[in-house]
This record gives sequence, C-alpha cells and structure tokens, in this order.
Amino acid sequence: MADSSWSPPAIAPLDGEAMAAALVRWASRAKPPGSLGRLEELAVQLAGITGRCPPAPIERPAVVVFAADHGVVDEGASAWPRQVTALMVRTMAEGRAAINAFARTVGAEVHLVDVGVDADLSDLAALAHHKVRLGTGNIATGPAMTRAEAVAALQVGIAVAHGLVEGGVDCVCGGDMGIGNTTPSAALVAALTASSADAVTGPGAGLAPDRLPHKRALVAKALSRARALTDPMDVLVQVGGLEIAALAGLFVGATARRVPVVLDGVVAAAALCVAAGIAPGCAARCVAGHRSTEPAATIALAHLGLEPLLDLGLHLGEGTGACLAIPLLRASIAALTDMADLPST
Amino acid sequence: MADSSWSPPAIAPLDGEAMAAALVRWASRAKPPGSLGRLEELAVQLAGITGRCPPAPIERPAVVVFAADHGVVDEGASAWPRQVTALMVRTMAEGRAAINAFARTVGAEVHLVDVGVDADLSDLAALAHHKVRLGTGNIATGPAMTRAEAVAALQVGIAVAHGLVEGGVDCVCGGDMGIGNTTPSAALVAALTASSADAVTGPGAGLAPDRLPHKRALVAKALSRARALTDPMDVLVQVGGLEIAALAGLFVGATARRVPVVLDGVVAAAALCVAAGIAPGCAARCVAGHRSTEPAATIALAHLGLEPLLDLGLHLGEGTGACLAIPLLRASIAALTDMADLPST
Repeated sequence: MADSSWSPPAIAPLDGEAMAAALVRWASRAKPPGSLGRLEELAVQLAGITGRCPPAPIERPAVVVFAADHGVVDEGASAWPRQVTALMVRTMAEGRAAINAFARTVGAEVHLVDVGVDADLSDLAALAHHKVRLGTGNIATGPAMTRAEAVAALQVGIAVAHGLVEGGVDCVCGGDMGIGNTTPSAALVAALTASSADAVTGPGAGLAPDRLPHKRALVAKALSRARALTDPMDVLVQVGGLEIAALAGLFVGATARRVPVVLDGVVAAAALCVAAGIAPGCAARCVAGHRSTEPAATIALAHLGLEPLLDLGLHLGEGTGACLAIPLLRASIAALTDMADLPST
Repeated sequence: MADSSWSPPAIAPLDGEAMAAALVRWASRAKPPGSLGRLEELAVQLAGITGRCPPAPIERPAVVVFAADHGVVDEGASAWPRQVTALMVRTMAEGRAAINAFARTVGAEVHLVDVGVDADLSDLAALAHHKVRLGTGNIATGPAMTRAEAVAALQVGIAVAHGLVEGGVDCVCGGDMGIGNTTPSAALVAALTASSADAVTGPGAGLAPDRLPHKRALVAKALSRARALTDPMDVLVQVGGLEIAALAGLFVGATARRVPVVLDGVVAAAALCVAAGIAPGCAARCVAGHRSTEPAATIALAHLGLEPLLDLGLHLGEGTGACLAIPLLRASIAALTDMADLPST
C-alpha cells in the first residue's frame, strides 16, 4: 500500500468553453449585470470545474473528516491534551459534534476516517479505519513521518475521494480533527509560501496569548528543517500531519474527478498548498469556504489565489466552514440555471 | 384603512434570560470557546428574539417582496425604465427571478405584494393586491406621498407580517422590487443618519459612472426637504417609497411578534431606519443578512448597530441577500441545540 514511488494523477485545466457559456448566460439573466457579485464568479468556476453550463445541482455533498494525532502536542503546542482527538472522533461518530449539526442543516453526509489517531478506535463502526501510524513524530525535533507513511496517508485520501465520487457524491468538503494540527499547518504554509514563523502562527483552538511565543518557537524549529526543501512531499514528511496528507490526497482525488471541492480553514488550506504543489491545477478546482481567523489560512489562500466566501470568525475545523458555504454554491447554480432572460421593454 | 393617527405596536426588548442561557450553553459545548465566531453571537441573538434557548429550528422561512414604482425615475435616477418593475413582478410571479431560485434552495416561501406598481397587475393570482397609489411622486421636486398613504403602506406591511406569523412562518426576510428605489433609500438614510447626499449615493442597479453626479444631485434635492424633519414618518412622506414603507411595516409587525427578521440590502436597511425610529427595539430583533455594495447600506447598518453576515458584492434586491443568510441562522441554532457537552478527559 505504501508506495513511495507514487506519482499524482494529472488534473485538467478548468473547462474554458463551459466558463464562457456561463458568462454569456449570466449576461442575459433578468438582473443588472454583476448584481449577484461573487455568486456569479462562483457559478462560472463551478461550470469550469464540472465542464457543464449550467452546472448540475449539488444533491449529494459530503464532508470527509480525517483524524490524526501530533507528536508536537508533547511540547505544549495546543491548549488541549492529545486525548481530545479520540474523544472528539467519538463525538462525531455519535453525530453530536458541530460538523454533524451543520451537515444535517444542509443535507450533507459526514464521513469519518482515522489516519493516525493515537488511540484504539476499532470499536467505532461509523469510522473508516486507515491508521497509518499512531500520530506523527514531534516536528520540533524531527520528521513528522517517513515518506512511505506520507504517501500512504495521501493515498488514503485519494481512495476516499474516488469511492465518494463512484458512489455519487457531487461536492466534497475536507475537514480535520487533530489536537495540535494548527502547528504543522502553520509550518507547512510557512515553508510552501516562504513566510516567517511569526507571520503564520496563531492561537489555533484557543491557545492563551502568553503561550503564543512558545508555539511560534516550535513552528520556527520545524521550519528550520523544511525551509530549504523544494519537493512538497519532503515538506509534508518533515513538518506535516497524517490528516493533512490525507486531505491533500482527497483534494487531488476529487479535483482529478472534476468534482467541486470546498475548503475549510487553515488545515485544509495547508493541505491544498501541498496538493497544489504535487498536482498543479488542483487549487483552481477548489472553492474557499471561509476565512479562518488563523493567520496561516489567509497567507495560504492568497498563495493559492483563492478568495473565501464567508468571513465569520470561525476557527473550529472539522469541515464546519466548508459546510456552511454549500448553500452558496447551490444558490449560484440555481440562479444561473433557473432565472429567466432579461425582460424586453 | 388609511388611518393617519396610527400608532405603532410596542416591541419588547430581547429576552435577557434566554440570551444568558444561550451563553451558558455555548460555554459547555464540545468545541473551543468562541470557535464558531459570529454564529455564536447569532444564536444568542436568536434566543433573545424568540425567548427560547435553544431557539426552535427555522422550518418555515418566508421572503416577502413588496413592489412599487418611483416618480424620481422620470428624472433619470435609474439605469432602467419604470416598466421593468411590472415586468420583474411578472417574472417573480412565474417563479423565474433570482429570489425564486434562491428561495427554492433554502426551502423558503416567496410572497409578492403590490403596494404601488404603476401598471395593471390585477391578472396575477400569485400577487397580493394592496396598491396604495400608482407609484410615488417625484421626490426631487415634492413629497413622495401623503401621510395617509405612508400609513396605509406601513399597515399593509404590518398586516402581511401578522398573517405570515399566524400561518406558522418562523423567519421573515424582507425584499423589494422597484426601479429607482435606491434613490429614495439613499435620501432616507441620509436624512435619518445625518449623512451627506454624496456619502449615501451609489450606482444602484448599474447606473453608469457618468450619471452618478446627477443621481447625487437628485438625492441632495430630496434631502433638502427632509433634512430638518425629526419624525421618521415625515421623512418617509417626503423622500420615501411605498415598498419601503411596507417593508418598515413588515419589520415592525414581525419583530413585535418575536419572529426573527433577516434584512436584505440598502432598501431594507433604509426601511429599518424608519421602522426603528417609529418602534424602538425593532433593530435589535433583526439580523443583517449581507452587506450590499450600495454605500447607504453600510451607513444604515452602522447606524442600526448591525453587522452583516455575508459580504459577497451583491446589489440585486428582491430579498436575495437575506435569503442567502437563512442557512447560517439554521446552522447556528443546530449547533447550539445538537452539540454534545465538552468531553471530560
């Protein structure tokens, strides 16, 4: 399974013909030109992603939550102990986390995948079991994982994407659960966008302000090993996370299948920086659901050329900010599809 | 029907007990404190509006679109001819306007009400017929309407709100259709917030940049008659619109019945400035759905103490920006209601 000589699928450019058709169609709808703002661009992008104008309605959206632990938590990188990862996976499996509540309101499926939780979750039937290892190594002092492990986690994500698309899912949101994962996300974004540890590091899930300098120092230590690397897989190996690798795989797999991907916050944005490095063309097929309050999210989105739809001060993860954007995708498609021509006077 | 000695219903302050209960409930949900950002405040406000913690799910949202014409269009205030108002009402009655498309994606009802379209729409069964007069007077040169007409339009809005609430509607969005109505909206906002004509005037539904100085001059002329007035009804009489008056009535009526109101863009914001002047407490029971690109919208929302949820560059009206926010209200309620307690470690 862990094939370190793996190479990524090719990702087609956006369908220019479908996008041109969408622009023409918008121009004759019964409304002032441009008056639907960002939703007009969004429908054009969705036409380009799916190769259809108007794009088909989104009827089976899915949120995939990859869960894993992080060795750097032992250094005090997070406000929460490592055990919370497994506890929150159990909460999600019971349908009682924020992402479950949000997903129900928009009619999205939630799929849970363990790629590296440092706990025995084998009793959970609602969880797909693809544990690559029991959490990463401590990125402040050494590599997160081996290259074979990174490839294995990435391939889990690709396989999940293919399974969902084969099953009829028509929109994919990527979510994460992993105590401590804003630290590797910050390090990945810093390495892949040539940013400083200070610029990318934020409080994540509620780190106290007086602990932030320590977290910055941890990111700086990790970054010192990754800064000179040019292969995004090498960066992932040094400072990444197992759920981040799986998310990168999900994005590569779903975009290769021309299914719209909606990004969540900083962890998803870091994963897309990896995915876009591995598989050029991937980012253009993604929609940024929201702007996380984590500074690395904004840096990553700017690097990727994506402008988020929502800006609500969220910083929860789990795919919550992606899920909230699904109704906007639906509305943009519905308007392009169902609106009458301009009335003639 | 037109009772010029009318007085508004009293509007209760937000329910402090329900809001306090919501804050306590958020504090023990399974997530980092504050990590749902604006959605946490939103659910607290909805608890305060409805007097319930957690608030009941939104199951029957409705969008009300009031339509009317504007005499100032004869002065070249709009990029569109007056006839488009009636044509767009017909498009909405056929379910083929942007608001119909959006409303279907969120499961909202659309109610159309003619309060002053300058055309015979009596053949439309899908339209509620409450025409007060055939469009307003030209506000650049004289009053928009009489006080009796303003009260009549306001009372249409209140009656519609009561009818919807009696019928089981549990969330009300206010929309508008009226070619030229960003001009009276700008004048109303300027008069009620002590702003200048230059500050409030924008291109509305696509006025060419070289026509903007002319529109500013029209707003300034209208404003010269309204600036010194202290009674918001007098301002409405001088520089308002029939659909704006009806929207103000809708907001007063729905908030008096403790049903959440979602604002659309500049026309709704102008109407709420009037409603809040007439019935103090009204604005605190409203949620700003989005930030319209019209400058008067931002000025009005700041005056009302409301921060919009969405900022997508919309400037269409019809209730579109309000409708797009409904899923966010639902998500905030669902999270507060359905999430588990914090796991104990």
